[in-house]
Amino acid sequence: MRKLFFILFAFAFATSLIAQTTGKYVLVIHGGAGTILKSQMTPAKEKLYKQGLQNALDAGNKILKDGGTALDAVEAAIKILEDDSLFNAGKGAVFTNEGKNELDASIMDGKTLKAGAVAGVTNVKNPITAARAVMDKSEHVLMAGKGAELFAAANGCTIVEPSYFFTTQRWNDFLDAKKEDSLKALHKDSTTGLLKQPSNHDYKYGTVGAVALDTYGNLAAATSTGGMTDKRYGRIGDSPIIGAGTYADNNTCAISCTGWGEFFIRLVMAKTISDKMEFAHESLKNAADDMIMKKLPALGGDGGLIAVDKEGNFTMSFDTDGMYRGYIKSNGESKVEIYK
Amino acid sequence: MRKLFFILFAFAFATSLIAQTTGKYVLVIHGGAGTILKSQMTPAKEKLYKQGLQNALDAGNKILKDGGTALDAVEAAIKILEDDSLFNAGKGAVFTNEGKNELDASIMDGKTLKAGAVAGVTNVKNPITAARAVMDKSEHVLMAGKGAELFAAANGCTIVEPSYFFTTQRWNDFLDAKKEDSLKALHKDSTTGLLKQPSNHDYKYGTVGAVALDTYGNLAAATSTGGMTDKRYGRIGDSPIIGAGTYADNNTCAISCTGWGEFFIRLVMAKTISDKMEFAHESLKNAADDMIMKKLPALGGDGGLIAVDKEGNFTMSFDTDGMYRGYIKSNGESKVEIYK
Repeated sequence: MRKLFFILFAFAFATSLIAQTTGKYVLVIHGGAGTILKSQMTPAKEKLYKQGLQNALDAGNKILKDGGTALDAVEAAIKILEDDSLFNAGKGAVFTNEGKNELDASIMDGKTLKAGAVAGVTNVKNPITAARAVMDKSEHVLMAGKGAELFAAANGCTIVEPSYFFTTQRWNDFLDAKKEDSLKALHKDSTTGLLKQPSNHDYKYGTVGAVALDTYGNLAAATSTGGMTDKRYGRIGDSPIIGAGTYADNNTCAISCTGWGEFFIRLVMAKTISDKMEFAHESLKNAADDMIMKKLPALGGDGGLIAVDKEGNFTMSFDTDGMYRGYIKSNGESKVEIYK
Repeated sequence: MRKLFFILFAFAFATSLIAQTTGKYVLVIHGGAGTILKSQMTPAKEKLYKQGLQNALDAGNKILKDGGTALDAVEAAIKILEDDSLFNAGKGAVFTNEGKNELDASIMDGKTLKAGAVAGVTNVKNPITAARAVMDKSEHVLMAGKGAELFAAANGCTIVEPSYFFTTQRWNDFLDAKKEDSLKALHKDSTTGLLKQPSNHDYKYGTVGAVALDTYGNLAAATSTGGMTDKRYGRIGDSPIIGAGTYADNNTCAISCTGWGEFFIRLVMAKTISDKMEFAHESLKNAADDMIMKKLPALGGDGGLIAVDKEGNFTMSFDTDGMYRGYIKSNGESKVEIYK
């Protein structure tokens, strides 16, 4: 009798668990938008980028498939991209004007509207884990600089020597930017702090991002970046700014942006798309396309974003030549792409 | 003949200038929201606070009356409040966990959607002037720490010794918070970074803000703060975050917030109110009240805000016991208030 009761109880418990899940999930990632032209790419390099994106999708997919949360899936996908030196986040981050790597990241849980972010960290191997720790283990949302590093170290994040982030490719990009810098300085007052836009826009928009809908109907978003090559004056872009570069709300969508950060901040890009869905009842695609294809260029900016809504509809909008991107769905459908 | 032509031309020119202005302006300011109880206030202290608010209104009013811009008016009002040691911004800022003063500020122009902000500066006399310089003289929106200080110094902001910000009152608040801190640490792991909420909430919400509509129909918003007493780990609140603590758009409204910053960031408070007006066609007052009286407490936060819309309607919403606040209109109507 006692055994039968136990079996019935276990059955009811298992049913209730199943009933709570839809079985349906979606993961979308990006590795930055910019002047990414097929004419400037080699087949070997293209293969490496696609493999990097695929590795991130696989890591997130494994979690979602096993009934994990959107939050864990986006964090896992971002970690892979941070560890891959091809992308401007974690290892492979661009250099600041002072020849250092300063990293920003943010993460948001659409279920609770909890969020965490770090800005300007120089020794946290995976900045996204520090952002997650800020969200889970503090009452704060955003921590910056040395304070953020202390918090990350005290909360189990892997700390590395700043030299860990060095890559020859980014160092050469930095030297190129410096050269342009000094040429332009001959004609312009260098104290004004006007950003020298590098002629190769490619390394301006390096950012990685992930958004997911899990089988429980929860949305999450995460973004990580090394910022702009040759950035100065402690500049912080949109990546660690909740509402600008990252936003997630179970009632609407989850979004991660990449592009010329200042314009994404001024437009409060991610939250505005969520609000267009909530208040103007626009579809995710219409809301995202309006912001990326119209509002953003109207101000003079450019870039892109990935987003998924609570129904599992997703979009990968960009007005640049290319955006490293990919998605995977619970039905097995998956793709990685680079160009327009 | 030539003289007549000149007179006609001068008349036409003057008329065109007048035609561009409505003659109508509004300036609204706040000096922070929190547990501000009449029972804990002396008449002398109340008089000082009201005089401080009045001085800020007078400074902004002079500019608007003389045909100046909303942008110049909000900056001028904030400077007065930063210089007044009663308010938690500029001189009179609270102390961090390390016994330092770290200041944040932001400003936004509703006409161009241009914005500037600084976070964690320790030697800029008026952080709002640094935020304005970031907006006017760089292509960036947000600068933090030493980089922001270098930029401010190179762009004409007055630099002071960090000791300039010291006040005995705030130092005593800090010592009280430290005492609470060590008492609580006996019961809780201090490495988790959980913020110790001081029992006296008054000094938690110190922020100053100003919003204005000028006679040209332009809106502007500005916010400045010393942040939370005893803050740690390079914590940044909502004040320097465009969309959270500050937002302005000529099509909707200008907003400056004060309160428990983390909740304002998670709700993207200021931009959401602007979006409720733009996309759901809500009035400024309804949009602001819904966010401050419902959405904010639903998450566990509290605080307040000031806002003015493009028609000159304004609101001063808060769900705390009090908020230092005041307004002045072009018709001479003016008031400063403290309690509910």
